[in-house]
Amino acid sequence: MTAGTECDGPGPAVVAEEVLRARAYLMRLAEPPAPRLAHLVALLGPLEAAERIRGGADLGRHVSSEVSGRRDVDRAESDLDAVRALGGRLLVPEGPGWPAAAVAAFDRPDLRGNPDWVAPLGLWVRGPGDLTEHVDGSHRSVAMVGARAATGYGKWVARAWSASFADEGLAVVSGAASGIDGESHRGCLAAGGATVAVLACGVERAYPATHTRLLAAIAEQGAVVSEYPVGAVPARHRFLVRNRLIAALASGTLVVEAGARSGAARTASAAQELGRVVMAVPGPVTSALSVGTHHLARQPGVAVVGSVADVLEDIGPAGRLADPPPRPRRPLDGLSTTAVRVHGALRGFASSTAAVLAREAGVEPRAVPAALEELAVAGLVVPDGERGWCRPV
Amino acid sequence: MTAGTECDGPGPAVVAEEVLRARAYLMRLAEPPAPRLAHLVALLGPLEAAERIRGGADLGRHVSSEVSGRRDVDRAESDLDAVRALGGRLLVPEGPGWPAAAVAAFDRPDLRGNPDWVAPLGLWVRGPGDLTEHVDGSHRSVAMVGARAATGYGKWVARAWSASFADEGLAVVSGAASGIDGESHRGCLAAGGATVAVLACGVERAYPATHTRLLAAIAEQGAVVSEYPVGAVPARHRFLVRNRLIAALASGTLVVEAGARSGAARTASAAQELGRVVMAVPGPVTSALSVGTHHLARQPGVAVVGSVADVLEDIGPAGRLADPPPRPRRPLDGLSTTAVRVHGALRGFASSTAAVLAREAGVEPRAVPAALEELAVAGLVVPDGERGWCRPV
Repeated sequence: MTAGTECDGPGPAVVAEEVLRARAYLMRLAEPPAPRLAHLVALLGPLEAAERIRGGADLGRHVSSEVSGRRDVDRAESDLDAVRALGGRLLVPEGPGWPAAAVAAFDRPDLRGNPDWVAPLGLWVRGPGDLTEHVDGSHRSVAMVGARAATGYGKWVARAWSASFADEGLAVVSGAASGIDGESHRGCLAAGGATVAVLACGVERAYPATHTRLLAAIAEQGAVVSEYPVGAVPARHRFLVRNRLIAALASGTLVVEAGARSGAARTASAAQELGRVVMAVPGPVTSALSVGTHHLARQPGVAVVGSVADVLEDIGPAGRLADPPPRPRRPLDGLSTTAVRVHGALRGFASSTAAVLAREAGVEPRAVPAALEELAVAGLVVPDGERGWCRPV
Repeated sequence: MTAGTECDGPGPAVVAEEVLRARAYLMRLAEPPAPRLAHLVALLGPLEAAERIRGGADLGRHVSSEVSGRRDVDRAESDLDAVRALGGRLLVPEGPGWPAAAVAAFDRPDLRGNPDWVAPLGLWVRGPGDLTEHVDGSHRSVAMVGARAATGYGKWVARAWSASFADEGLAVVSGAASGIDGESHRGCLAAGGATVAVLACGVERAYPATHTRLLAAIAEQGAVVSEYPVGAVPARHRFLVRNRLIAALASGTLVVEAGARSGAARTASAAQELGRVVMAVPGPVTSALSVGTHHLARQPGVAVVGSVADVLEDIGPAGRLADPPPRPRRPLDGLSTTAVRVHGALRGFASSTAAVLAREAGVEPRAVPAALEELAVAGLVVPDGERGWCRPV
């Protein structure tokens, strides 16, 4: 994983500064994930989207609700200057180095319309690491996640396996937290591998502070990545949003240790939603920090891995994503956003009229009949009385 | 699990001594599993089968090949006397206490015609334990198997979990070997539970000798079971044959610890063939004695269990067998024995005539056309030239 190798493949070599400025502006506008804004940008392109928003155009209620708070804050230039001062850069879909195949995971048909699954508008990056190689390139990558309060066993597995992955040419993606994250980065660095730290704050910030030197080493040898501009502080919801990016940037996610309630399980669940391989490292059944991994290993589609060889087998050969494991279909999979919202507005098994549903769901009344038809076809709603609708018993 | 409770359900209260004598004679005739003899007994009943064999009737080549060596050895009465002297008995399908539902596992349609899967002709038993309760009765049972050279971790899990199973009213079935087997029996006994030891030798024999007291305690509180008469010595092939009985007598099989090559894996595989739940206890990936359990846990249909609660969930509610896990269909599943043998006689992709196939497979020439038709329907053979048959490319 080196920047600018000769086999970077097709892709734009440079990107116009105005596109970078537009995306930098848009990335500050709404707190990710911002599905309405992402939709607008996909529709109009970053330049026109930014221009319309800056110019105060009427954006419709939904986009407005996402961006109105920060519409007049344009720090695009200072954000770009700040990351460049760190030797970093902003990756955008229009420019080189954009991990298009990794981000394409957010485009799975069954995820469309789900507001939690929105691709980032851009990625702030420090370090020589080339993200395009991780998932669809000549290398593979594995996300290693787990408990902050890891045991000696978990830390040993994280460090030793990570070094072995590096030896096998895999990049190791993690979140730079204490415990499993830190040991995973360290093992990879020690073996001379490329490691990617995905942060829930600006790429200049060390969180926890004890990882200042670790993050500096990652920025030297791999890549420090974030959706958030320089200066952004970590926040609880940003960790959750960040976890989806960790999952997306790796061919598979490996949970090394996890307690009964664990953020690592969320990353694993994100990985599964994105069609990535999910693997759990078993441990002693007597360890509280293996309760989460064993629980995970009992879920459909999750593999138990007893060795580095098992992980390599499950991730599949380089350059080709493993077939996504079968995932359980959920009742609302594949429905339009409007239908999902109308479904959410149905109160238990009581009957509602279309007008009530429109109000409760916050959708246009004229969109309700089509949504109800969609739900009826899916068996999720039945007519009740002359003008009412309710959930089927 | 007590002998002769009032809710024993339907079933004969006594069995004629002549039936016991006939089955005792038949059980010594052929080394189990003896599919031809079993078929003959199923066809004629034990009395007529025994009479014909004793009388020197022509039994056809297949049955003769199984029984000719011991045809004139009739120790039925002394075998029955010997087990009775130990306070034991012979269980037979015609009598009380026969675990009919457990043994019915051998009757799965996809196992028919497979010579490895033959129900026992009878079971020699010592101890008050009532086998009819284990699989289909008011209790459930779990088979606990694993390495003889178990680690402290494995032994702790075996003993602690076994005691918990006893507390939950489950019987614990195992093989009375050193290591995991012994600890599983001990944990159950210590908790006042009912445990079943299935032996590869006579029920009077302690193997290993260090388990003399353990086996006496099991015979006191549970049941010591064997297909082999008093006096029979353990032998390598008898352990393998015995493993299928362990699997059949339990609702699910739990592998606690197993190295890379392990007899426990064979018991697990038998359990899966019989449609039983198979579970693996995870352990440290750094332990050589968890390599086998982790390998097993990666097989389709095998569950990882991190706790006693997981095992109870997987085994399902008492009195109802859990749905058998989906097992991969194999090409020869469901075919007649003749078809399987004819298929085995096809040499690579070379063409053979029906006459050659009859000779190679050792089946009657007139049975070959029907077998070939069966194989052709299953896509396993294609006509080749005017009178030839070969495997499809």
